[in-house]
Amino acid sequence: MTLEGKMLIGQQAILGSREPIHALNPATNERLEPAYLGGSREDVERACTLSWQAFDRYRDTSLEARATFLETIADEIEALGDDLIARAVAESGLPQVRIEGERGRTCGQLRMFARTVRAGEWLDARIDPALPERQPMPRADLRQRHVALGPVAVFGASNFPLAFSVAGGDTASALAAGCPVIVKAHSAHPGTSELVGRAIQAAVRRCELPEGVFSLIFGSGREVGQALVADARIKAAGFTGSRSGGLALLKTAQARPEPIPFYAEMSSINPVFVLPAALKARGEALGEAFIASLNMGAGQFCTNPGLVIAIQGPELDAFIEAARQAVAGSTSQTMLTPGIFEAYESGVAGLAGSDKAREVARAGQGEGVNQCRSGLFVTSGDAFLDDPALQAEVFGATSLVVECVDQAQVERLAERLEGQLTATLQMDDADLDTARELLPLLERKVGRILVNGWPTGVEVCDAMVHGGPFPATSDPRTTSVGTAAIARFLRPVCYQDMPDALLPAALKKANPLALKRLVDGKREA
Amino acid sequence: MTLEGKMLIGQQAILGSREPIHALNPATNERLEPAYLGGSREDVERACTLSWQAFDRYRDTSLEARATFLETIADEIEALGDDLIARAVAESGLPQVRIEGERGRTCGQLRMFARTVRAGEWLDARIDPALPERQPMPRADLRQRHVALGPVAVFGASNFPLAFSVAGGDTASALAAGCPVIVKAHSAHPGTSELVGRAIQAAVRRCELPEGVFSLIFGSGREVGQALVADARIKAAGFTGSRSGGLALLKTAQARPEPIPFYAEMSSINPVFVLPAALKARGEALGEAFIASLNMGAGQFCTNPGLVIAIQGPELDAFIEAARQAVAGSTSQTMLTPGIFEAYESGVAGLAGSDKAREVARAGQGEGVNQCRSGLFVTSGDAFLDDPALQAEVFGATSLVVECVDQAQVERLAERLEGQLTATLQMDDADLDTARELLPLLERKVGRILVNGWPTGVEVCDAMVHGGPFPATSDPRTTSVGTAAIARFLRPVCYQDMPDALLPAALKKANPLALKRLVDGKREA
Repeated sequence: MTLEGKMLIGQQAILGSREPIHALNPATNERLEPAYLGGSREDVERACTLSWQAFDRYRDTSLEARATFLETIADEIEALGDDLIARAVAESGLPQVRIEGERGRTCGQLRMFARTVRAGEWLDARIDPALPERQPMPRADLRQRHVALGPVAVFGASNFPLAFSVAGGDTASALAAGCPVIVKAHSAHPGTSELVGRAIQAAVRRCELPEGVFSLIFGSGREVGQALVADARIKAAGFTGSRSGGLALLKTAQARPEPIPFYAEMSSINPVFVLPAALKARGEALGEAFIASLNMGAGQFCTNPGLVIAIQGPELDAFIEAARQAVAGSTSQTMLTPGIFEAYESGVAGLAGSDKAREVARAGQGEGVNQCRSGLFVTSGDAFLDDPALQAEVFGATSLVVECVDQAQVERLAERLEGQLTATLQMDDADLDTARELLPLLERKVGRILVNGWPTGVEVCDAMVHGGPFPATSDPRTTSVGTAAIARFLRPVCYQDMPDALLPAALKKANPLALKRLVDGKREA
Repeated sequence: MTLEGKMLIGQQAILGSREPIHALNPATNERLEPAYLGGSREDVERACTLSWQAFDRYRDTSLEARATFLETIADEIEALGDDLIARAVAESGLPQVRIEGERGRTCGQLRMFARTVRAGEWLDARIDPALPERQPMPRADLRQRHVALGPVAVFGASNFPLAFSVAGGDTASALAAGCPVIVKAHSAHPGTSELVGRAIQAAVRRCELPEGVFSLIFGSGREVGQALVADARIKAAGFTGSRSGGLALLKTAQARPEPIPFYAEMSSINPVFVLPAALKARGEALGEAFIASLNMGAGQFCTNPGLVIAIQGPELDAFIEAARQAVAGSTSQTMLTPGIFEAYESGVAGLAGSDKAREVARAGQGEGVNQCRSGLFVTSGDAFLDDPALQAEVFGATSLVVECVDQAQVERLAERLEGQLTATLQMDDADLDTARELLPLLERKVGRILVNGWPTGVEVCDAMVHGGPFPATSDPRTTSVGTAAIARFLRPVCYQDMPDALLPAALKKANPLALKRLVDGKREA
């Protein structure tokens, strides 16, 4: 498929009118063709008009039709074949095997949401039948189901050019909920975005859906992104990216005449607590495994282990020494963009220049440009408690080990942490009581608690929570990965004494969708 | 029980230090003793400290213990006996039978949430078991449940001194979710608030819960209310009241370093669509029934029918004439406070002075002060479309009938409405197609759609939605009445590879709570 450098607005391919965006191959800084002219407010206006026109018809599609649409998108993405892989590798600098895995995850995610749509539990169908004889007042017939919120704006993430971009988790969950989607493509991978966008466009056509179900816009966050979130027809937005970017859009979402739900997944340093018995039993092995997790994808994961907390002593020294050797022996890896590389270098320089932290190891300079050299720093519990700046995320493969004087300081430090996506406990049986003490505190701070694993690697499933208290996300009530993400784009509607002929299928007396509804307080068998 | 005029902070009764608040009997403007000295920021600070200290222990209570606590609150409220009824009647001007009914609703609501807590569906327990052999990557054991958000601030409503005040729906659902609650009492009914607050305080004691589970503060919205919502330990807030009050607190919730969910139920005019066949068949009867609904509780319900929309003609004339006679024959009723009465009079004067609406009827002047005289106004579809001010809520027993030229104008007008709590269709079989056209539009605009009923009267049940798009509420994703309200105060947490000994009961292998969990994509039988 030849890339055209155009936005996709409904079924049209449209040339932008603003500054051209060029993808770079971050491994070479070589410019990739074609140019993508940025969109304008008029393009946003047109996409929003189409999405609004499509909304009522799309949200009224049957569960089967909507599930088939999601599966068709997956089929169309797979049909792009090696063109997609090659372009995504070139635009992201990520290894081919990673991009192939990410394609699998993206398509698997779409098919998983198709199953969720068909199962229909997300409709949360509830029925309280009429009680005409009840004293002192009869009860009306009351029925509730969930409906789609409205058109959703999605912001593609830099670090998952497939799984959290144009057809990623936010798009899949919003489409599953019955919401049309307008994607603002990430400027780092416009070609990948165009390819995937065309796959969705083709699926819309094949499934004979209204064209406004999907649009893809290129352009600046300040012009196009802000205009999208400010548009009255957009009823929710999903974002994965930097804290500054997320907070700027959050402000816009809040300041609208009608404020809307805004789901930003922003920053997290994912503390790892190495508890005493585990540290003693396998400190060296943990130090090595820690750096293996840190180095994954050049550290460019939201769940990267950016902080390790343990009690000082010879066991922790052994952990740090093993980690130091692993960092020193790390091969440098290409980062996603020159901008991300520069921010990483500046974050590492900030730690190196701090009198609160000491550099323990830095990987050697690799060949080529935009290379992430892993880094390891150590600080004391007192220093960490003193300086909130040590909690700032350094996006990339650098981490900070905090040496605490005792378990009480570990807890004080944990209590001082900002909201996080994950926390990890490395523990042995003898650490059970210590872990039990920490758990309630961690439950208040994070979305996912792991034991004896590493936070990188986010399973797409029913039980996943990729979320957490602010500033990990802007809304702690949800997850952006896994089937529960569909709830972000729904709201309940109640129907009182409505004739069966007018009721939606989910609530009709005959239960044509065969849902297990909550009827008069009891779950149907 | 003798009223002491004190705030309840944990188990203490504390005298305030600010301007005294006196309840008035709105039927006489007579001042009721005792004075309630307003609280200060220091009182808010103390209540928040206690609630934070109580949080981990309270949210960790067993389902049975928490349900028993809710039932104990209901028992303690009933044990207040006639003192509570007498004081609530004196402070609200509402008839005794209404207050008795409201007590029943309040206690019924607490017991309903006890059943919901015990059933445990709100935990949304999900388990994806480990798949160690999966290729290319094994799957970890992943388990998810919902946990309480944190301490919740609740603002008592003026118009439900029991059911939406100190132990009302917001408090019951937050306590059910495992959140400590701090109530800012409404200044119109401090004595009722103290009595109910003491009942909750006693239940905390009887159930041996940490004292910070509940506090009650008096004082100004500007000082105490804002300080509560701004406090870092408060993690969500519930509010029922005016649009200006709700929006001011919403801004504070958004502007915090950590923004929090803020659930304001604010304003709604609850449009009633009288469709042609129904209008023809029973216009007069509908006109009478409409005014009966309008007059309920002096029109001081959030779901009061403040707008009627129909097609002009002799049938609508007959409806209006019947309504006119009903209004003219209405007895005036005492409003809740002098302030609400003044705002009502000013709202009615605004309609009377508008060149867009004509006054059709106004009830006669009753005896006594703060009397709500019902009012009926008529305008044209064109005028309504022209002037957004005609959508402003007049809180009280006044409504506006809009005469449309045809059904197309009815739909244009419906499309122009702001978000509402309810919409009502008065319809006969011959109106089915017309209703079907309107339905998708109304689903986008409101939380509850009624057929051939009246919106006043909000059933407390599983299927109720008392919510809706902005500005009916600040968050369309929820309801403030009914069991689904518990979801407002929860967030998901995922546990990965956690030893069974550390897992919460909801997620343990043996399933000790006997929940029907979602295991590997299948709902347990």
